[in-house]
Amino acid sequence: MNYKMMGRFTAQILFIEGIFLLPPLAISLFLAENAAIQGFLLTLAITAVLAAVLFLLCRDARNAFYATDGMVCVAFSWIVLSLIGALPFYFSGAIPKYIDAFFETVSGFTTTGASILTAVEPMAKGLLFWRSFTHWVGGMGVLVFLLAIAPAKGSEKGFTMHLLRAESPGPSVGKLVPKMRKTAGILYLMYIGLTVMDILLLLAGGMSLFEALCTAFGTAGTGGFGVKNDSIAGYSPYIQNVTTIFMLLFGVNFSCYYLLVMRQFKSVFKDEELRLYIAIVLVSIGLIVWNLWGFYPTAAETVRHAAFQVGSIITTTGYATTDFDLWPSFSKTILLCLMVVGACAGSTGGGIKVARVLLLFKSLKRNIAQMLHPRRVEQVRNNGAVVDERVIANTNAYLAAYVLIMFSSFIVISLDGFTTGTNFSAVLACLNNIGPGLEMVGPACNYAAFSGLSKLVLSLDMLLGRLEIFPLLVLISFQTWKNR
Amino acid sequence: MNYKMMGRFTAQILFIEGIFLLPPLAISLFLAENAAIQGFLLTLAITAVLAAVLFLLCRDARNAFYATDGMVCVAFSWIVLSLIGALPFYFSGAIPKYIDAFFETVSGFTTTGASILTAVEPMAKGLLFWRSFTHWVGGMGVLVFLLAIAPAKGSEKGFTMHLLRAESPGPSVGKLVPKMRKTAGILYLMYIGLTVMDILLLLAGGMSLFEALCTAFGTAGTGGFGVKNDSIAGYSPYIQNVTTIFMLLFGVNFSCYYLLVMRQFKSVFKDEELRLYIAIVLVSIGLIVWNLWGFYPTAAETVRHAAFQVGSIITTTGYATTDFDLWPSFSKTILLCLMVVGACAGSTGGGIKVARVLLLFKSLKRNIAQMLHPRRVEQVRNNGAVVDERVIANTNAYLAAYVLIMFSSFIVISLDGFTTGTNFSAVLACLNNIGPGLEMVGPACNYAAFSGLSKLVLSLDMLLGRLEIFPLLVLISFQTWKNR
Repeated sequence: MNYKMMGRFTAQILFIEGIFLLPPLAISLFLAENAAIQGFLLTLAITAVLAAVLFLLCRDARNAFYATDGMVCVAFSWIVLSLIGALPFYFSGAIPKYIDAFFETVSGFTTTGASILTAVEPMAKGLLFWRSFTHWVGGMGVLVFLLAIAPAKGSEKGFTMHLLRAESPGPSVGKLVPKMRKTAGILYLMYIGLTVMDILLLLAGGMSLFEALCTAFGTAGTGGFGVKNDSIAGYSPYIQNVTTIFMLLFGVNFSCYYLLVMRQFKSVFKDEELRLYIAIVLVSIGLIVWNLWGFYPTAAETVRHAAFQVGSIITTTGYATTDFDLWPSFSKTILLCLMVVGACAGSTGGGIKVARVLLLFKSLKRNIAQMLHPRRVEQVRNNGAVVDERVIANTNAYLAAYVLIMFSSFIVISLDGFTTGTNFSAVLACLNNIGPGLEMVGPACNYAAFSGLSKLVLSLDMLLGRLEIFPLLVLISFQTWKNR
Repeated sequence: MNYKMMGRFTAQILFIEGIFLLPPLAISLFLAENAAIQGFLLTLAITAVLAAVLFLLCRDARNAFYATDGMVCVAFSWIVLSLIGALPFYFSGAIPKYIDAFFETVSGFTTTGASILTAVEPMAKGLLFWRSFTHWVGGMGVLVFLLAIAPAKGSEKGFTMHLLRAESPGPSVGKLVPKMRKTAGILYLMYIGLTVMDILLLLAGGMSLFEALCTAFGTAGTGGFGVKNDSIAGYSPYIQNVTTIFMLLFGVNFSCYYLLVMRQFKSVFKDEELRLYIAIVLVSIGLIVWNLWGFYPTAAETVRHAAFQVGSIITTTGYATTDFDLWPSFSKTILLCLMVVGACAGSTGGGIKVARVLLLFKSLKRNIAQMLHPRRVEQVRNNGAVVDERVIANTNAYLAAYVLIMFSSFIVISLDGFTTGTNFSAVLACLNNIGPGLEMVGPACNYAAFSGLSKLVLSLDMLLGRLEIFPLLVLISFQTWKNR
């Protein structure tokens, strides 16, 4: 392990976090929210000192980067980001217990949206802004990170970055930077562009600038923290529909937008993941509308609520326009299944990802075909190209790890003694970065009642879900730390 | 597809089922249970006619057997067995709806033990005997079937049968018969021997012969149908403890007993699956005793109930000495997880199987190691021997199919509108061949309230779980039926 490199990387991350803390501080200064101002200033001071010390200690780091180093750095930096990001809530007294503040911040950066707050409206505006801003920052970080480990799409092989795949001490980071910067730049532009469009459309619907910013941040990061106690339920149908559309847009693989910009319409149209994503959304909305028929006064309202909740859950955002825990069992079960599926790979959404589900299906079909014709060699194809067997093996390992983590977490949090539905949906909602679950963690409730241990486990689940499991497993793996 | 071969095979299966129907008929005749006698006679008549017609039509079948044919035959024969086995319940009027009788019989043959009966005690003794007998017959069939597809163990490679693995038109069934007969004979002897020991020990505890037979059948097949409304709760601690021990014994891979008979004690002692199985059982009992402390009057009672329920659930038997749905959430969650793990491969128990869980763990560990050292080739080993990559791929495919079936069933049965805990545990209890779940399908309740559609889906889940998924998937696969 290249510790100095890791230290310098962490110093950079802290420096960036410090900059991101400035806008919410400005809001608190403007509104003279004294407790919040104190919290932000104290946090900034700590961040500055830590960053400076780390930078001075690790100035002379070698630019050598192994695959493991990349994974460990990424996992470690997300934990540091959350540990520091929790401080303003804690120092300002807005969230009295540090574990709660940590849970809330992990939930923010991982774009989960699970909250321990029983009411958000009394909170200082600067802190509320910071809370929503973490979603947007997390979504941004995730985007580049996801694309770095996601397989290349279509004809744009160059689109994939290799930082984390680097198998040997070279290529040095210096060499990679120009290419990475360019791709990341394009991604950030698309991300910012879509966010700005969302903000403008929300403002057009009569939202205040503050609310529009916070709502758009939660939508773009597919996070789900709201600034109202009833999430999006109190807003007009127009604003709800705008949010539905943008949630779904942010759940699409960003390489599709890249291809659109490159005018490769055909490869976007033929993208199997995108097609399956759209099909799942439409079928789910259809089934829920059928199941809910008569639940709301008008058909239009039924469709609006069904579409909003489906969009919110499959993209793992977690906003709500209605308490779907009151829906009939069938509709709730569909939402639970959508939680597991999640959004497209290379989006800001969580879950197993549509691309992985597609791959699992295809490799299962292949296995059955191979049982029928043992002598024929069958290959799995995606968008026409043969999928590397290593990708299939990794996808299967991902599912195994996912199931293992799900059941382990399920056991630990059941120590708190809540119902099976609560525990199961809480784990799914955190591991898949959604936010609200069912029953005691339903959209009208929160995670406050869980014990510290459960909150820690659920925080870990959020990080595992966000980092696609393996980087965090590598970080805590014994093998990473021996023989170095 | 060799239809004639399939027809002859089905005729043989029907003939055997006819023989198995004789003991319960004898009991009903002895007790002059008129409705039951009528039911049995009518069923026997239908079975005889069907078997005769099929045999005459398919006399001239070629002895050619593809891998697919084997799978299809096995899957088809289990369905036929259940369709016919349900008739006595239906014709006698004991179970008025045929779908309920079918559910009950599938539950019997698949050694699940899920029941739609609200009370068993009023039922005719002959029918009760038949109900428990299906467990024993199912366990017997499964044993040979499981060993046929389970990977070879230890040094006893010859122990594995190849009926279903046959990749080409040869070897003919004729050639295989002597070897198969011998191995199956040894297995049956061990199965019968253990059952007789259980019966004798139960009789020594003061049980009537009828109850001892039925209870031992349910234990040997790891089924769980009881002859009392309160399952095993009303019996003495001695009988409960005997049942605990025998449930756990029947959850062990039968090749271990074979190796014991062959005096290969060392390979049994070093068997990784057996060790993990024992470890899981002991740890689970320990955790539940800790969690239940104070729930029952004495420590001895706590240990007895914990051990019984753990043994019952991990071996997927489903007997109960207490209503574990009233236990605290943590203990219930451990039981839910044990449901998924299941017993050892090559036993009469269901679930994913300890051997598969072990393999999934090992291949996951390998994948992480490979991420850390991409250039090193890592192999997965079991009991010291390298595991074929195809076995790993199939295990992963199994998990993917399992998760897919679980969520699909979960969606369909949620149409009935029960709670998430009920639906989720009902699917787990059927797919893993356990029987009782939690909440509305808890040990003090039954499956009567589900709709016909749900009962059909749950019946399919029981068959899928019992046949280890793939044979049934092959049977319903489009590719099996085209180009033949």
